Amino acid sequence: MSPFWSATVRALQPYIPGEQPKLPNLVKLNTNENPYGPSPRVLEVIRGETADSLRLYPDPESNRLREAIAAFFGNIEPEQVFVGNGSDEVLAHAFLALLKHEQPILFPDITYSFYPVYCKLYEIAYRTVALDDTFALRIADYRQPNGGIIFPNPNAPTGRALPLADIEELLKANPASVVIVDEAYIDFGGASAVALVGLYPNLLVVQTFSKSRSLAGLRVGFAIGHHDLIDALQRVKNSFNSYPLDRLAIAGTTAAIEDREWFERTRQAVIRTRTALTQNLESLGFEVLPSAANFVFARHPKHDAEKSALALRQRGIIVRHFKAARIEQFLRITVGTDEQCAALVEALREILSA
Amino acid sequence: MSPFWSATVRALQPYIPGEQPKLPNLVKLNTNENPYGPSPRVLEVIRGETADSLRLYPDPESNRLREAIAAFFGNIEPEQVFVGNGSDEVLAHAFLALLKHEQPILFPDITYSFYPVYCKLYEIAYRTVALDDTFALRIADYRQPNGGIIFPNPNAPTGRALPLADIEELLKANPASVVIVDEAYIDFGGASAVALVGLYPNLLVVQTFSKSRSLAGLRVGFAIGHHDLIDALQRVKNSFNSYPLDRLAIAGTTAAIEDREWFERTRQAVIRTRTALTQNLESLGFEVLPSAANFVFARHPKHDAEKSALALRQRGIIVRHFKAARIEQFLRITVGTDEQCAALVEALREILSA
Repeated sequence: MSPFWSATVRALQPYIPGEQPKLPNLVKLNTNENPYGPSPRVLEVIRGETADSLRLYPDPESNRLREAIAAFFGNIEPEQVFVGNGSDEVLAHAFLALLKHEQPILFPDITYSFYPVYCKLYEIAYRTVALDDTFALRIADYRQPNGGIIFPNPNAPTGRALPLADIEELLKANPASVVIVDEAYIDFGGASAVALVGLYPNLLVVQTFSKSRSLAGLRVGFAIGHHDLIDALQRVKNSFNSYPLDRLAIAGTTAAIEDREWFERTRQAVIRTRTALTQNLESLGFEVLPSAANFVFARHPKHDAEKSALALRQRGIIVRHFKAARIEQFLRITVGTDEQCAALVEALREILSA
Repeated sequence: MSPFWSATVRALQPYIPGEQPKLPNLVKLNTNENPYGPSPRVLEVIRGETADSLRLYPDPESNRLREAIAAFFGNIEPEQVFVGNGSDEVLAHAFLALLKHEQPILFPDITYSFYPVYCKLYEIAYRTVALDDTFALRIADYRQPNGGIIFPNPNAPTGRALPLADIEELLKANPASVVIVDEAYIDFGGASAVALVGLYPNLLVVQTFSKSRSLAGLRVGFAIGHHDLIDALQRVKNSFNSYPLDRLAIAGTTAAIEDREWFERTRQAVIRTRTALTQNLESLGFEVLPSAANFVFARHPKHDAEKSALALRQRGIIVRHFKAARIEQFLRITVGTDEQCAALVEALREILSA
């Protein structure tokens, strides 16, 4: 290591994102992107914004977008919305602003693998809480002293959703801790905790435009919560980067959240395909966890997951496999188009019978 | 303050960016944007990239852009280039990765006011070093123990440039410290320290697309240095946000750095206008510091700067005034088009004779 590195940078264990392959013909079912493009209205608005005005800084507060997000949910004010350069940036700021306290924070043992990375970055102690044998999150296990709680709902990479009543119980049991519900996948079947924001000042809900809004390429995420929590995020943002969202991203995501019809149509299509994919995988002998996300998490009792992932790749199909305790026999498969999912099922049928 | 805030967020003193007014008819000479739009080729490329592929994540390493930046400079490898969401994000990562050590870091007393904000965010001790009476940076004053050195060249908000020989002397005198040269304004008259990167492993040079490339609205900055320094920045980036640049920003800035002719033409136009503006301000009795940037820093011996700024605003012209020791009698005026600068000079003539 270089003598120029800070102690912080020496201790880091960076996150490794899913592969973004350079080959164009692969069936890409590894990073949970939406198989459908963004609303045509989004593309039209971005093209209109592509003008000489790009010489000017964007609105540092992204107010148009915050107003559009508040209007979409209806029960919140624009001042209760924080926006950032992807939900990963929003989460990073939230860890530093709201989860760095005396006590360790809590999150599931199987969850989004960026959480422990943020803890290293900001020197935040954490304890993991084991999911049960069915990979469900048990609220009772979070009744212990903590400096904050964070989990995805639906959870990643399992896809399992937690009912809103459980989240409310957790909020009531932890009134002195911030509870962050990371809803990257909520629009594919879960019930959003945004409905609870007015009732619980310790609740922060994080969402993204990368999945259900088909804009992973534009990098916008947001958080919704009590003014005090949003103020904390704004203070960190304004001590880090005044202008996190560019002009095209602000315009494009504003148009995306306003086009409710496109949003409904595409997310319902993903949900329908997920049902068919689940049945087809089960007919091949896979155990598929109940998914409320745009991916399924599946294991086969007789076939090694890593070998199956490699065999799929040789057939031009990429899925994600995690070499991690308890889940090393699972494949995480993004719900693609009907055609992509049919290609996956056919390839798996060949591989299993080989 | 909310009990949910971390100790870090309680201690922050966020940066306040220059105003982005909502009124369209103002002559905006307050945030050092380029008066000329980006290359038409940039707009064409962005429009072409505005497609269904926005559903897919961007390249997390922005390799096309890093290759184009390396090719522009010629003497560096793509692996020596780090890119981020504006040079503010690049600087933030550099503070945490390379300037957080036992000893306090050094920067000028009059400089980019985001530096002390980053120090608060990451709990980095600092000492300021006074510019001399002509607002020049004296290299000899930096011969003291330090955990790193950072300054803009040309300096902000003074516009004064430091010769490359002085920077080389500083690098030789501080072989155990990282020296960061923040070259946001270098293309308007300074000599870039990128020429020294191959010789000094402790040198990091930061630049931006916001000024000389007319893309403040797209949010891209970059750093160039030894592999070890770039590795440190990558480690922080990959512990914070895997995908800091969106697809449109990568495509647009790649096209921008490839269009050398547009870059040359527009920056030479700004330099020409700066010369005329300086002469006109001097003829009104202003003292104008020698500027190598796309702004001038000027004071009038007989007229209060804050009052002049307010009077300009009443006439629809915005410039920047800092209520800070030693510079409270200066106005920072962005070099606009010839017409904008003529309007400014006429308005000042009226104000001074009122």
